[in-house]
Amino acid sequence: MQPWEDWDHVVKIDPDKTLLNDESVTDVGETGTDAIIVGGTMGMTEEKMTRVIEACRNVSVPVFIEPSGTGVVVHSDALDGYLIPVVMNAGDISWLTGMHKEWVRLDDSIDWTHTFPEAYVVLNPDSSVGELTAADCDLDSDDIAAYAEVAEQLFGQSIIYLEYSGMLGEPSFVKSTADALDSATLFYGGGIHDYDSAYEMGQYADTIIVGDLVHDEGIEAVRETVRGVHDAK
Amino acid sequence: MQPWEDWDHVVKIDPDKTLLNDESVTDVGETGTDAIIVGGTMGMTEEKMTRVIEACRNVSVPVFIEPSGTGVVVHSDALDGYLIPVVMNAGDISWLTGMHKEWVRLDDSIDWTHTFPEAYVVLNPDSSVGELTAADCDLDSDDIAAYAEVAEQLFGQSIIYLEYSGMLGEPSFVKSTADALDSATLFYGGGIHDYDSAYEMGQYADTIIVGDLVHDEGIEAVRETVRGVHDAK
Repeated sequence: MQPWEDWDHVVKIDPDKTLLNDESVTDVGETGTDAIIVGGTMGMTEEKMTRVIEACRNVSVPVFIEPSGTGVVVHSDALDGYLIPVVMNAGDISWLTGMHKEWVRLDDSIDWTHTFPEAYVVLNPDSSVGELTAADCDLDSDDIAAYAEVAEQLFGQSIIYLEYSGMLGEPSFVKSTADALDSATLFYGGGIHDYDSAYEMGQYADTIIVGDLVHDEGIEAVRETVRGVHDAK
Repeated sequence: MQPWEDWDHVVKIDPDKTLLNDESVTDVGETGTDAIIVGGTMGMTEEKMTRVIEACRNVSVPVFIEPSGTGVVVHSDALDGYLIPVVMNAGDISWLTGMHKEWVRLDDSIDWTHTFPEAYVVLNPDSSVGELTAADCDLDSDDIAAYAEVAEQLFGQSIIYLEYSGMLGEPSFVKSTADALDSATLFYGGGIHDYDSAYEMGQYADTIIVGDLVHDEGIEAVRETVRGVHDAK
């Protein structure tokens, strides 16, 4: 069994942002979330990644990093593993195979047994990740489900990640994508900010990812989303 | 065990080309080759594909098709399966995920249990496939091996296909790619025209693909390449 198969809820911590004053990553791990992913789109540096990873040493849930580029793959024994984004609907192949080839070419320390791809479908063109990857977000429900099926069936992907980054997505699209999958795990991210939004997306996605909320509202708000997704299961 | 795991030699028949006058696809199946793949890059139509597939009904080895686009995926009980190219170093994502998404969206008859991707690395920029896919062929040995490793480790690919289409490749590149793979099968295609070239590449690749030779020189020449690759094993 892969670690993410029993994750209902994940908090993504952006090393380029801060937590609220009196809150630590250890507190984040106590919210009821199932894992912490360290990663962000803009302003990533090895130094920022390393600082958050080191702060995660006493966290009670698994900690993974999600590098956004070749320079920020930090190897650390504080980590449970590496989640590597591949963007199925990117505007160019850098985000699918290009940067990955460069990384594999240069990094002799890759531990494939703890390194797992995530097949992103990026759905908000105005988000940082949408702009950076020049993703084709002009997709209907069938397009999104087809990308998910291609990812699972042709590219052997075990994680399909619908990323609405910064906005709440269309629940019916999440449902139809879930229906198109065989055994892959469906991650949903974007706009989860309270019990209701977590409940709504938690009905269809296997795993809800909460990002901005932990930086903007703090751990009590995160707890509400944990409750929402658990009640949906 | 997947069907290709014991293939040393494959003949690829291009539906846009003819066999020599007195030769049939059934004869091709008697050369000692392990399988026939039906597919080509240019001038493909459903009609041409269907004509060759129907002619393969009495062939003694497995027959697969390799569609070059969404319109030529012919479903037939004469086939053992479907090999779907994904081009790791393509110039745009159409050849990686784009056309595949369109196909999956439109085709309700896909039998995933008989449908398998092939991860191409296209290495001759002047070939039809190189031009069509706008592949980045300016790659050294480490680049090619890294693409192969990405294909196997991140994209779950069981077939890595070094495609020199129309020219004999650099044997040391084939060897270093083979060394970078864990359990995936390495196909080699391009410029195999006699015993020596088959022997040379057969030392490193798991499977040698012969294409133009069957159309230009016929089955006796194909038999020589079968001998070459068998002696190399």
